[in-house]
Amino acid sequence: MKIDTIRHSLAHILASVVRELFPGAKFGIGPAIENGFYYDFALPSEALAKEGLSLDDLPKIEKKMKELIKKDIKFKKKIVTKEEAKKIFKDQPYKLELINELTETRSLSADRERVSVYRAGNFIDLCKGPHVKSTLQLHSGQAKEIIDAFKLTKIAGAYWKGDEKNPMLTRVYGVAFKTKKELDKYLSLQEEAEKRDHRVLGKKLELFLFDEEVGAGLPIWLPKGAILRHIIENYLYEELTKQDYKWLYTPHIGKINLWERSGHWNFYRENMYSPIQIDKEKYLLKPMNCPFHVKVYNFKIRSYRDLPIKFAELGTVYRYEKSGVLHGLTRVRGFTQDDAHIICEPGQISQELDKIIKQGLKILRAFGFKNYTIYLSTRPKKYAGTLKGWKKAIDSLEYVLKKNKLKYQTDPGGGIFYGPKIDIKIKDSLGREWQCTTIQFDFNLPKRFKMTYIDKKGKKQEPYMIHRALLGSIERFIGVLLEHYAGSLPLWLSPVQVWVIPVGAGHRKYADLVQKELLALGIRSESKTETETVSKKIREGELQKIPYMLVVGDKEMKTKSVRIRERKKGDIGMVRLNKFLKKVKKEVEIKK
Amino acid sequence: MKIDTIRHSLAHILASVVRELFPGAKFGIGPAIENGFYYDFALPSEALAKEGLSLDDLPKIEKKMKELIKKDIKFKKKIVTKEEAKKIFKDQPYKLELINELTETRSLSADRERVSVYRAGNFIDLCKGPHVKSTLQLHSGQAKEIIDAFKLTKIAGAYWKGDEKNPMLTRVYGVAFKTKKELDKYLSLQEEAEKRDHRVLGKKLELFLFDEEVGAGLPIWLPKGAILRHIIENYLYEELTKQDYKWLYTPHIGKINLWERSGHWNFYRENMYSPIQIDKEKYLLKPMNCPFHVKVYNFKIRSYRDLPIKFAELGTVYRYEKSGVLHGLTRVRGFTQDDAHIICEPGQISQELDKIIKQGLKILRAFGFKNYTIYLSTRPKKYAGTLKGWKKAIDSLEYVLKKNKLKYQTDPGGGIFYGPKIDIKIKDSLGREWQCTTIQFDFNLPKRFKMTYIDKKGKKQEPYMIHRALLGSIERFIGVLLEHYAGSLPLWLSPVQVWVIPVGAGHRKYADLVQKELLALGIRSESKTETETVSKKIREGELQKIPYMLVVGDKEMKTKSVRIRERKKGDIGMVRLNKFLKKVKKEVEIKK
Repeated sequence: MKIDTIRHSLAHILASVVRELFPGAKFGIGPAIENGFYYDFALPSEALAKEGLSLDDLPKIEKKMKELIKKDIKFKKKIVTKEEAKKIFKDQPYKLELINELTETRSLSADRERVSVYRAGNFIDLCKGPHVKSTLQLHSGQAKEIIDAFKLTKIAGAYWKGDEKNPMLTRVYGVAFKTKKELDKYLSLQEEAEKRDHRVLGKKLELFLFDEEVGAGLPIWLPKGAILRHIIENYLYEELTKQDYKWLYTPHIGKINLWERSGHWNFYRENMYSPIQIDKEKYLLKPMNCPFHVKVYNFKIRSYRDLPIKFAELGTVYRYEKSGVLHGLTRVRGFTQDDAHIICEPGQISQELDKIIKQGLKILRAFGFKNYTIYLSTRPKKYAGTLKGWKKAIDSLEYVLKKNKLKYQTDPGGGIFYGPKIDIKIKDSLGREWQCTTIQFDFNLPKRFKMTYIDKKGKKQEPYMIHRALLGSIERFIGVLLEHYAGSLPLWLSPVQVWVIPVGAGHRKYADLVQKELLALGIRSESKTETETVSKKIREGELQKIPYMLVVGDKEMKTKSVRIRERKKGDIGMVRLNKFLKKVKKEVEIKK
Repeated sequence: MKIDTIRHSLAHILASVVRELFPGAKFGIGPAIENGFYYDFALPSEALAKEGLSLDDLPKIEKKMKELIKKDIKFKKKIVTKEEAKKIFKDQPYKLELINELTETRSLSADRERVSVYRAGNFIDLCKGPHVKSTLQLHSGQAKEIIDAFKLTKIAGAYWKGDEKNPMLTRVYGVAFKTKKELDKYLSLQEEAEKRDHRVLGKKLELFLFDEEVGAGLPIWLPKGAILRHIIENYLYEELTKQDYKWLYTPHIGKINLWERSGHWNFYRENMYSPIQIDKEKYLLKPMNCPFHVKVYNFKIRSYRDLPIKFAELGTVYRYEKSGVLHGLTRVRGFTQDDAHIICEPGQISQELDKIIKQGLKILRAFGFKNYTIYLSTRPKKYAGTLKGWKKAIDSLEYVLKKNKLKYQTDPGGGIFYGPKIDIKIKDSLGREWQCTTIQFDFNLPKRFKMTYIDKKGKKQEPYMIHRALLGSIERFIGVLLEHYAGSLPLWLSPVQVWVIPVGAGHRKYADLVQKELLALGIRSESKTETETVSKKIREGELQKIPYMLVVGDKEMKTKSVRIRERKKGDIGMVRLNKFLKKVKKEVEIKK
């Protein structure tokens, strides 16, 4: 029994209860979805005029569903003619609409003239199936099992067929699994995930801000968030510079003819914003940095001796996303790519890929991500470049993955038209996967922009170009990072690393002195000399996820010591200031 | 005798010669301008059909002008009626157009019916004057002086009245001074300035790039330029962080309603680009960062205890400039402001201004600018805010300038409508002034965005906001920096600080070792192991303005030493590598 079948059957049971509660309800569709199901319906106007349906009603509906399930409701399939179906659903305008459409598309039935309907209890639905045989006994001889590992979770408005010109229906969502255990696991994961929601943490820890008047999907970094971003950007700058990457800064707009030449305006337009008119020409916000990096490459004649050339940029790009899918930092309209282009000779590909992979995983590990899934996507039907080039590229990607003993899944034909790629999804502490690193060959731009180098024999050749983003988007990565750590960032990433808290007014001076010594070591610290109680400050510091709070009173002052409160551990005792300075300095350095 | 009178008279002499060479020429206008003069004229079509006028013709014209001057040409003024004037200029359509316009404007003559004309030799011109009495003897009893300290410099096309719908005229430019000495000084300064032209240096030193296909006025930073920019940005980051500035990152676009509320869309629209349509709303590229910083301030309730709050950002803004005025990095369409907003209580203004001025001058000095001119601009007729607020602000600005013993010039009424300001123009090594620092009060945005704080008494108050940019624009500042140093940047700013040059193939390994030790100290260095002669490498290094070149051969290798070639000094002898490392490390640190 497929879990989707159970989910789909639960949608019917849900609809059955809704129909019982609101006899005049008109039903839309009710499919299985990821982790559960939903059903759309229009409540009768008299019900809407009263109270409609609210979150508080869900337990009642859930209870009635469970009562039905216990009655071992049978799902009975029947094939009827369209005319019969129209009679059955004569009071259901949405179903009638679907029946009429079936004439053209035949998508739900193999038969042009007939359709299938399912009856479960008192509820009959136009439906292709399949369904469970009954709510207690499952299909196909499997062990008897009750389909009650479900929970109704939320109510939302949804336009009929997703079109805002159509009426708004009420949608009730549920989650469902094969066993109660799975359901509980899912629900507690959800609960944990909600606590870690980076949008909530971003506000609570004062990291970033979205503002209606500025625009959706455009993050504004608050001071503490800007520190975090600066630390990450600096770290990348140092690591990549060591590996001989050359940094660039490129503009945020470029003439439309640049994007026409690169192919973006033809193949990527739906993600791009409308043109800006400057004098007699149109300009576009950049959705990618690539054409600019190509311009830098083409700035002068390149020789094989210069290769590989590695250009890196922290480039802020702007891409259109529908307002409905925007989500905190993880789905935005403007974001900063940690972008790089490696331009090299055929003989250098494997070596460069090896460096990229090794450095990439090293950096991900530094941020605390140790688990990931790797996908290799190969040549699709439509492609730029030559068969030979694709083969060489894919062979090199496979070679490097194997050389580094990395498990990966192949997505045959899943490459982009311009080249094969490796994607790395990192797993966070809740086991959720996040698309992060991408390493892509590009057989498109070198041709379109006539990129060349002079080879050993003095002949012009087209170089290979590898495009790669490691964190992908700094914004998105920070969102993931916050959820991974539930806001308790490692010391080196914490915007504020240490609070010094004086016990009384007489200890303020000493607190300031301690803070000064911390600052001198480059430790981001604050002396909390406000006139509030120590316990209130500690509570606040815990909410702010401050890694270390140093409480200083008479004893500490006298012995030039500090009493350490470590995040999550609480009081871990008094030590000499010097010793703490050494300890914290060492911990900050560890990540590298 | 005003120099402008001499320049204006030279324009007539120029026209007189042009008329002699091209009898059918039609004359436009010929005013005095900064450093010289020009005259516009339409060459007769038969002259244009042949060769027209080229740069090569200027010496000939200049020679003829000098011949006329030696004849002691007299300038004779005559008042004539318009009807008479129209007869005199019956063959000069541009002059006739001007005469007809005078009826409406009377700008050239006090008399509605009469105009003044000047005759000098065979050339008669419609002209308000004044002029020199004669080309040898000057006006008003001054010592006899020959007006021949001039030089014709260039030819350009110019639309009649600057309107592109009108015919294109030929414009000949000249420079002129009272004495030959002044002229020579000006010309040699020009020559020196041309050598230092940052656009030429930018290309030669591979610092930045402009690309026709990307768009005018949009700099792309090449790797070495990006290093320079990164050093400057890092330096600012450190310096400002020490002074408790909080950094922000804000988006490059914002909804039109944000810019309407801020007033930019009404008062600054001509500098802004056309809107981008996203879903149903219009967005604009930001010309300033201010509204975003205000949003961060308004993110939560602020108390007097939190003030002063200082927000800083290296924010890239986009402002429209006509394509004709774009000039390398010093006049662009997209640039990065080192922007900050200081929000404080009235009682904190002077102290904060004092810090801004002190830190500002310290930073300018660190970059090698020790001379500047300071301008204080006061309240214009139309202004935002209260008289009391303006007075307090201006008093504070004056107080701080005096306290720091800084000379300044007052520009009465020269403030922007939203507040008084201090501008600092830095003087470069050629004595040229460049607008750089600006410190402006803003009485506009706090009101428009309802910025408040809770004062000591628990009452809501509107804070003072000071907007300041220190370098102004990173792009522009780098342009000035390059011209100031003629490309020979101080050690700490040099993208590549040291080259290690092995004498022979046997010394390459040692060269690499030396470079490794330099890199370990954070010294940006390259080991030049290419198979070229040492002298060729040294020549190249001199062109690239490399501060130190270390030549290493047998002797150096044996004694773990290096032979130092210092920029502009040449060979300064052999020293132990350790000693050089110490020396260079110390020099790099000096600037701070």
